[in-house]
Amino acid sequence: MESQLNAITVLSGGTGGARFLQGLLHGIHSGLVSPTARVTIVANTADDVWMHGLKISPDLDAVMYTLGDGIDPEHGSGRRNETRSAQEELAAYGVEPTWFTLGDREIATHLVRTQMLEAGYPLSQITAALCKRWLSPAYGDTVRLVPMSDDRVETHVAIADPDAPSGRRVVHVQEYFVRLHAEVPAEAVAVIGLDESVPAPGVLAAIAEADLVILPPSNPIVSLGPILGVPGIVDALRATSAKVVGVSPVIGDRFVGSANAGASTGSMGEQLMTATGVEVSAAGVAKLYAARSAGGVLDGWLVDSTDAAVVAEVEALGMACRAVPLLMTDHAATATMATAAIELVG
Amino acid sequence: MESQLNAITVLSGGTGGARFLQGLLHGIHSGLVSPTARVTIVANTADDVWMHGLKISPDLDAVMYTLGDGIDPEHGSGRRNETRSAQEELAAYGVEPTWFTLGDREIATHLVRTQMLEAGYPLSQITAALCKRWLSPAYGDTVRLVPMSDDRVETHVAIADPDAPSGRRVVHVQEYFVRLHAEVPAEAVAVIGLDESVPAPGVLAAIAEADLVILPPSNPIVSLGPILGVPGIVDALRATSAKVVGVSPVIGDRFVGSANAGASTGSMGEQLMTATGVEVSAAGVAKLYAARSAGGVLDGWLVDSTDAAVVAEVEALGMACRAVPLLMTDHAATATMATAAIELVG
Repeated sequence: MESQLNAITVLSGGTGGARFLQGLLHGIHSGLVSPTARVTIVANTADDVWMHGLKISPDLDAVMYTLGDGIDPEHGSGRRNETRSAQEELAAYGVEPTWFTLGDREIATHLVRTQMLEAGYPLSQITAALCKRWLSPAYGDTVRLVPMSDDRVETHVAIADPDAPSGRRVVHVQEYFVRLHAEVPAEAVAVIGLDESVPAPGVLAAIAEADLVILPPSNPIVSLGPILGVPGIVDALRATSAKVVGVSPVIGDRFVGSANAGASTGSMGEQLMTATGVEVSAAGVAKLYAARSAGGVLDGWLVDSTDAAVVAEVEALGMACRAVPLLMTDHAATATMATAAIELVG
Repeated sequence: MESQLNAITVLSGGTGGARFLQGLLHGIHSGLVSPTARVTIVANTADDVWMHGLKISPDLDAVMYTLGDGIDPEHGSGRRNETRSAQEELAAYGVEPTWFTLGDREIATHLVRTQMLEAGYPLSQITAALCKRWLSPAYGDTVRLVPMSDDRVETHVAIADPDAPSGRRVVHVQEYFVRLHAEVPAEAVAVIGLDESVPAPGVLAAIAEADLVILPPSNPIVSLGPILGVPGIVDALRATSAKVVGVSPVIGDRFVGSANAGASTGSMGEQLMTATGVEVSAAGVAKLYAARSAGGVLDGWLVDSTDAAVVAEVEALGMACRAVPLLMTDHAATATMATAAIELVG
């Protein structure tokens, strides 16, 4: 290991980011990464949605459940030993939407979150309260989860709809992902509320005071895109003395979601990158984030071993680049990948 | 059968009232009672409570689930094939209260109700919407369930608490029943909001236009007491051209809840009658409701066969009285009991 890292900040989406974090924490625990490192996770909340009167934060929950060993290992999302009685019953009432997956254990988290919101607590404080159960037992105060913003921000996807007067229809990103399985071509992505949002307390400080900032292989459009779109966050990334390193979510011409987090995740990555004009390649995502030296946010970019051919192209963008195995097959492989990212900018 | 009954109105609490209604509807269906009768159920809502941000209406739900064949037959309350995952999870978060029973299927009903309330619908319209699932398939529009009031009314019970400066503490009736199993002596009962409440739309008309009004063997203090306490309801009962007949919830010196609806129900009946100065006997409850001829609400009162000795005492109050078997052992027995009540004032 190179220099001691005391503070690592990770910008994270849901399943993919959570798996990366699991590997990173495994690396810290096993000494591969600086064992004194404290980790702050800034999570996307633009996937959040209100359903049946419940405030649902899928990415915050995916990170909490994954790191707190409560995740359903088979699906990589949702709770272990879950039941779906309430969802069955809502369907029996004919209450829409019926396509959203709502586990009974998940409902408990949603109830606590919703009730605290209604009592006036901001999402960041609610998240800290929920993490007392999920993160504190294993990590004490060395791992902290913070929403990107306490403000309501929601991503919507425009799809073709021949029946609509405008020829298109806008659906919440959850509907695009869960009901439509991201199989319908996307025409545009709009993140409602993003321009007016402010970073949650602690987010800018976590970037400013970090020794290292990591962008894990999360979806660049609907996971990391909204985080980077919160006014102030990109400026903080440009200004921080920490190095900023990212891991490509694309291997070859496929979004790795298809291997790491299920077919719909992969399909969503590819559809939404295409819709927003981002080339579905490791170099395409590097160009989107861009080098700090060229007004972007990255000092380094990790691509998959099979993409070694793009290393020179990425380096030409003004950032360090290296090709290593990126498939997060287990904690150890992911920890090795996280270590490679750290060493790249060390 | 005597004269044709077109409209029967039943004032009902939860489990006991629901079982009585099941027998009455069985009687109507089988021709024991006038097969053309339409039934309006005016249910107690003073047991209602907000838990974890959910509006819970135990008596409305008990009636819906029982008549719609969704009740857990073993417990006489709650849903059949219920799971408790959300409750387990709330306990794992350490979120109070942990003593309240919250089934996952029940949560779905609570979510629909809460969301509709927040959208501005009154409880009576929400109840009608929920009953499209529970009552319409079997009964069409011949059975209607109406809350006593759309206003928030909640029953609280004062119990001794040596640690409190006043020497007593006030708990919600649900806490008294579910957490304390009604085993602690009650000192007083207060129904908060009752004096300012108004009957829900349709309640006064259902009493005025009925051919018969029935008070089933529900708890006189916390089930029928609050219904009778909604301003205007007693006046409507005194003014209606319908006969008003009741069924004693007490057999001997025991509240029949102990036989019909579980030990806590029985205990609660006895504790709260004692606390409010009502003699725990069939005649004691008849005195509480009193004869219409003496400024009360009853024209007739059914007591159990084993209480034949009190018939003369009840008749002396100015109402008809008869002793018949009152244990609701099955639908047929209950239908026979309902028929006896009807014949008593026929």
